[in-house]
Amino acid sequence: MFRDHNCSELTKLDVGKKITLSGWVNKRRDHGSMIFIDIRDRYGITQLIFDPEISSITHEMAKKLRNEWVFSIKGEVALRDAPNPNLKTGDIEILVENLKILSASKPSPFPIFEDKTETNEELRLKYRYLDIRRKPILDKLKMRHLVMLETRNFYSENGFLEINTPILCKSTPEGARDYLVPSRVYKGNFYALPQSPQIFKQLLMIGGIDKYFQIAPCFRDEDLRADRQPEFTQIDVEMSFDGKDKLFELVETHLKRVFKKCKNIDITIPFEKMSHAECLEKYGSDKPDLRFDMELIRLDEIAKKTSFSIFLDTLNADGCVKAIKVEKGADLSRKKLDEYSSFVKPFGLKSLFFIKKTNGSLTSSITKFFADDLLKEIDEKMQIANDDILFIASDAETKVNQALDHLRRKIAHDRNLIKPNVYKFLWVEDFPLFEFDVEENRLKSMHHPFTSPSTKDIHLLEKEPLKVRADAYDLVLNGYEIAGGSQRIYDSEIQSKIFKLLNLSEEDIKQKFGFFIDALEYGTPPHGGIAYGFDRLIMILTNTDNIRDVIAFPKTLKSLDLMSSSPCLVNQDQLKELEIKTQEIEKITWE
Amino acid sequence: MFRDHNCSELTKLDVGKKITLSGWVNKRRDHGSMIFIDIRDRYGITQLIFDPEISSITHEMAKKLRNEWVFSIKGEVALRDAPNPNLKTGDIEILVENLKILSASKPSPFPIFEDKTETNEELRLKYRYLDIRRKPILDKLKMRHLVMLETRNFYSENGFLEINTPILCKSTPEGARDYLVPSRVYKGNFYALPQSPQIFKQLLMIGGIDKYFQIAPCFRDEDLRADRQPEFTQIDVEMSFDGKDKLFELVETHLKRVFKKCKNIDITIPFEKMSHAECLEKYGSDKPDLRFDMELIRLDEIAKKTSFSIFLDTLNADGCVKAIKVEKGADLSRKKLDEYSSFVKPFGLKSLFFIKKTNGSLTSSITKFFADDLLKEIDEKMQIANDDILFIASDAETKVNQALDHLRRKIAHDRNLIKPNVYKFLWVEDFPLFEFDVEENRLKSMHHPFTSPSTKDIHLLEKEPLKVRADAYDLVLNGYEIAGGSQRIYDSEIQSKIFKLLNLSEEDIKQKFGFFIDALEYGTPPHGGIAYGFDRLIMILTNTDNIRDVIAFPKTLKSLDLMSSSPCLVNQDQLKELEIKTQEIEKITWE
Repeated sequence: MFRDHNCSELTKLDVGKKITLSGWVNKRRDHGSMIFIDIRDRYGITQLIFDPEISSITHEMAKKLRNEWVFSIKGEVALRDAPNPNLKTGDIEILVENLKILSASKPSPFPIFEDKTETNEELRLKYRYLDIRRKPILDKLKMRHLVMLETRNFYSENGFLEINTPILCKSTPEGARDYLVPSRVYKGNFYALPQSPQIFKQLLMIGGIDKYFQIAPCFRDEDLRADRQPEFTQIDVEMSFDGKDKLFELVETHLKRVFKKCKNIDITIPFEKMSHAECLEKYGSDKPDLRFDMELIRLDEIAKKTSFSIFLDTLNADGCVKAIKVEKGADLSRKKLDEYSSFVKPFGLKSLFFIKKTNGSLTSSITKFFADDLLKEIDEKMQIANDDILFIASDAETKVNQALDHLRRKIAHDRNLIKPNVYKFLWVEDFPLFEFDVEENRLKSMHHPFTSPSTKDIHLLEKEPLKVRADAYDLVLNGYEIAGGSQRIYDSEIQSKIFKLLNLSEEDIKQKFGFFIDALEYGTPPHGGIAYGFDRLIMILTNTDNIRDVIAFPKTLKSLDLMSSSPCLVNQDQLKELEIKTQEIEKITWE
Repeated sequence: MFRDHNCSELTKLDVGKKITLSGWVNKRRDHGSMIFIDIRDRYGITQLIFDPEISSITHEMAKKLRNEWVFSIKGEVALRDAPNPNLKTGDIEILVENLKILSASKPSPFPIFEDKTETNEELRLKYRYLDIRRKPILDKLKMRHLVMLETRNFYSENGFLEINTPILCKSTPEGARDYLVPSRVYKGNFYALPQSPQIFKQLLMIGGIDKYFQIAPCFRDEDLRADRQPEFTQIDVEMSFDGKDKLFELVETHLKRVFKKCKNIDITIPFEKMSHAECLEKYGSDKPDLRFDMELIRLDEIAKKTSFSIFLDTLNADGCVKAIKVEKGADLSRKKLDEYSSFVKPFGLKSLFFIKKTNGSLTSSITKFFADDLLKEIDEKMQIANDDILFIASDAETKVNQALDHLRRKIAHDRNLIKPNVYKFLWVEDFPLFEFDVEENRLKSMHHPFTSPSTKDIHLLEKEPLKVRADAYDLVLNGYEIAGGSQRIYDSEIQSKIFKLLNLSEEDIKQKFGFFIDALEYGTPPHGGIAYGFDRLIMILTNTDNIRDVIAFPKTLKSLDLMSSSPCLVNQDQLKELEIKTQEIEKITWE
């Protein structure tokens, strides 16, 4: 028997008991006559004392122990002279009678027990098995487990069945790039790893499984951004006969439960709702962070009455003038203002204008272009208080929105406007059904081609497709999109019409979705669903911006597994069996 | 609102209520004046009545409805004149006031509501979304969901964390054939889909996660047998510091709970245990079906005292003579006995001998080779009763075992010796650590190269490796291996020694497992685990021999998805981006 207790559970009440513990050497102090060792396991830390007067052999053996060695001890629980209030087991220590060294350890390439060190991430990933011993990573994996379990129980209690959909799938042309898997049985043919279980969950609805969920692995072969991984996880949900309102309620109840049970935080439901158009107007973004104000305010009506040529030219070119107000920002230094001006440049915004209010009057390099009543109008419109400052952008609408969105968030960050442990959820609704792809000169689905157009706009499909809103929605939390979904088309005629608008040829449709179009003709119920970005949710719940922290064995931005050195070259026999030939070989340098 | 009740929940108590239901047309009978329709959803069936006297418009519309159309109705719950005791809702019917047709359906290629039809499986797989509407498949998916949920709750309550391990992994040479995934970023390099999370779960143990589980997708690119799929599911479990006995107890408690909660069946724990050697001796198999007796009994000692040259030659050539006794089998026809003789031929057994006992005396074509006292000895040894029959096999031990194992099971089947709903579990222990691969002329791991040798046999490693028993175990249920595992090596020296015995070169080891061997040197705890064949478990729980029945979207024996027509040819651009070229293209014929 290697243990009868874990390293976090012994207390005063156990004093005098003979116990067995096992774990890793967390810290050792050799005081000559006595050796103190903190033993660590997944649950906590307990202080051990090796006293030659209790057992000289054991004391002698304990001299060999080094950090991260694995060992097991028997001993007696004793009260500590000087309790450690920061430790759960801080009232006691163990007088060790017997020691068994289970396995040695080379010196760890980075410290395990100090949480504050900033070890180079590549080193941590190479030795991920050691990294997982560290509390910051362990805690995130625990949270991940908890949220998965809570999610499964919640959806199951609500009548949903978890159904595993395949991972060896069919390659489809829409969306991101597929990972391919060559078939050995049928040479030259390929499976693809699923980017999401989208088609399968809709087939399940056709199959009469009216409530489905799955915590599903998904794959995208994309050049990675900091918050992406080649394999990621979705909480995938679909239901028939119930519509959007019930789905929203379900998701809200689910998240309320997750936040309560996993973080002990009460969130308010129902969540706020806003149309996609209103989001862009007010925040310049379809995933606004509502933890702080600073709405974008449109000043077109005022701007066109100024004599400022930049404003006038912008408006003539169908651009816009919008502003945000920073309360008590009038004392921002020239240097800081220059920094903000540079900050918005990468978004294509040529310049940023400022108006301050000090001692009751507005001052700026551009106020001279404003008649007095215009200054009054802007003052009222923006409700400017003394010592506030306005940031004004004038350009094409998308540039203004993008720049002010980023600026708004940067300022909130700079001025500490974001309180910790605030969670602002927002449903964004009424997305456009299509967007226009200039490069390919065709319509593209904003969400995916199975999204139902909004009933109210269905008459616009043929003539003004870009005006058609979709029955699609995103859930935004603190400025991050954490879920997105839609009600689906259940009428095969509308589905065909959408494919045509997307300029997919009959052959494309037949080849790629043929079987799905067929399936829609065998009794499809009204249905819709949502998919949560599970990794993102865990990131928010564990306060990290690094997606790799919430995945046990993640890959780098180059999709490398530094621990196992993967991908790698394979045996030529393996390729021969698949009848594929690699045209080029890039050697990966691992160190 | 499409519904406020499902199709299985209305009873007498709801009579008079106005309700809304949605679902599929399960069956329709048009009686001219009245139309009766059974509406079906995932939960059940309710009878609807369309009466022109209630609404002539609705009655008129209802004439259009055909099987499998989706529709929604409003109406009033009424008591039935003639209740249907076979239906949960059999006491009531709905007088329909309002009908909305939601979507039409082409005629289904096979009947949905008749459970007894034997539709061609390929047709069912092609229209899997319709197949899933059928109760036999739906029930199995429900069971799968339930067992997954129960399993997750059980292991979580016992302190285990579910941790997702990667699906884009490193290719390893041991074991079955890997599915490969070409890397786009590093041309010529490949990921592999995991055959199991074996290495990852051991790394998690090194990482201090002392209790891990996962319901994990696994992949093997093998020529499929009837009960295999290219992607399958494992319940994967690993724990540190606790040893085999605790693991057995855990698995037993888990299965007891699953059988109780998901099948309402009480199984007895702890399970029986038997060594691998004893299994082979008594049943000729390492996965004996204990639902019936008919043990194999060794007759070498008696056989060598006979004058029967076949026995004597066999024994001289290190073969054996073993028998099984079929109670009350003396009246088996000559034809049946010939059938059994033919049945054992494919296993390499040259002949099968019979001895019957009728009217108190043993008769057979071979009794003449037995002296009287030998006949008495065999009678006592086999405890032969009147009207019993012995089947005797004499050959090399593996052939005898294999033949009698199959024969034993066939006879049990033929004679209906297997009672329904009996579940006989057995732990098989003490497997050999190695087996000898004649083709490659080297030792191979019986389980896998990380399996710990049994402590009692460690001294035999160098000199008599084939005699070393492993700390490995299988769990057998009703003749199927449903789980297998081992305690692992936690000493890096023993691990290296095993690799050497397996004749893996330093370079092989370094290239393929290098990082894992490294990892073992950073403080590995004693650990071990098990993996359950999840699909097999669900097959047993749902009484099917067809693995495809317990998977929502399965593949055929040729690894084809008949529904989506996958695998398929892909766009040349996709291959170009990966810099791979297919040497040969095999066209798949889908119809």
